[in-house]
Amino acid sequence: MSALGRRDWLEDFTVGAKEKAGTIAFSEDEIIAFARAFDPQSFHVDPEAARMSPYGGLIASGWHTMSKLMKVVSGGAVAAGGAGFIASPGFEDLRWLRPVRPGDVLDVWIETLSVTPSASKPGQGLIIQHFTAVDAAGRVVCSVMGKVFFKRRGTA
Amino acid sequence: MSALGRRDWLEDFTVGAKEKAGTIAFSEDEIIAFARAFDPQSFHVDPEAARMSPYGGLIASGWHTMSKLMKVVSGGAVAAGGAGFIASPGFEDLRWLRPVRPGDVLDVWIETLSVTPSASKPGQGLIIQHFTAVDAAGRVVCSVMGKVFFKRRGTA
Repeated sequence: MSALGRRDWLEDFTVGAKEKAGTIAFSEDEIIAFARAFDPQSFHVDPEAARMSPYGGLIASGWHTMSKLMKVVSGGAVAAGGAGFIASPGFEDLRWLRPVRPGDVLDVWIETLSVTPSASKPGQGLIIQHFTAVDAAGRVVCSVMGKVFFKRRGTA
Repeated sequence: MSALGRRDWLEDFTVGAKEKAGTIAFSEDEIIAFARAFDPQSFHVDPEAARMSPYGGLIASGWHTMSKLMKVVSGGAVAAGGAGFIASPGFEDLRWLRPVRPGDVLDVWIETLSVTPSASKPGQGLIIQHFTAVDAAGRVVCSVMGKVFFKRRGTA
């Protein structure tokens, strides 16, 4: 799914680099299946009720969009599972800016905001990245800021 | 799943109120199924590889934990789908503080931090809540701050 090469170490990330990591597509069946399991609000699971809602039709759960975005991202620039990947302590600024509807195809972009070697742990550091999903008209649909701890090259 | 009554309007929320919304349980099969779909890192999908990882065994994807937490929450205090529910513009401060393992059962707590009538839109307002999942030993495993727009009672 990802157009990016694998990045295993803190040194593999460059501040300011921005790349397309892949695309995510949403079918009505998948939107309903995810929402039944995790977010069964009527405008996520019932096309008829959704038509009467303020959204005017079925929309994806924000957690569905975020989970699909993260799958693309973890195959790319955060190199999840790569040799130097340690863990993510958390995310900031989750934003759902526009509804996602059946048939939508979104581009996922990754921008590296900072790469900071740890002052206290010489073998590792923190990267902060901004992840966005963008629709066919170029509008940002959702975004989130992610932090990941990585080992530095040459560490065990 | 939720022990909370339904809350439909901005006026139904009280600053400082803290309640247990329900519990979430994690089986190995469910952890692997979610991760295969959305977060296929080896320590989420492969028990053997996970044993060799820094986690020492299989752990749930943080997005899995968050999605299950949100399902409990949306049945309760945010009253998703309720008459006065408008939308969530986003979340802040996602924190994954401890790994979640097969067999874990977590309590989900909701604390209302603020209830703010809109200055510009008299018929609505914003609530901010802190959601936490707590393990059997009382330790916070993950947490997130959620914002939801609600209509005021008596509005259409």
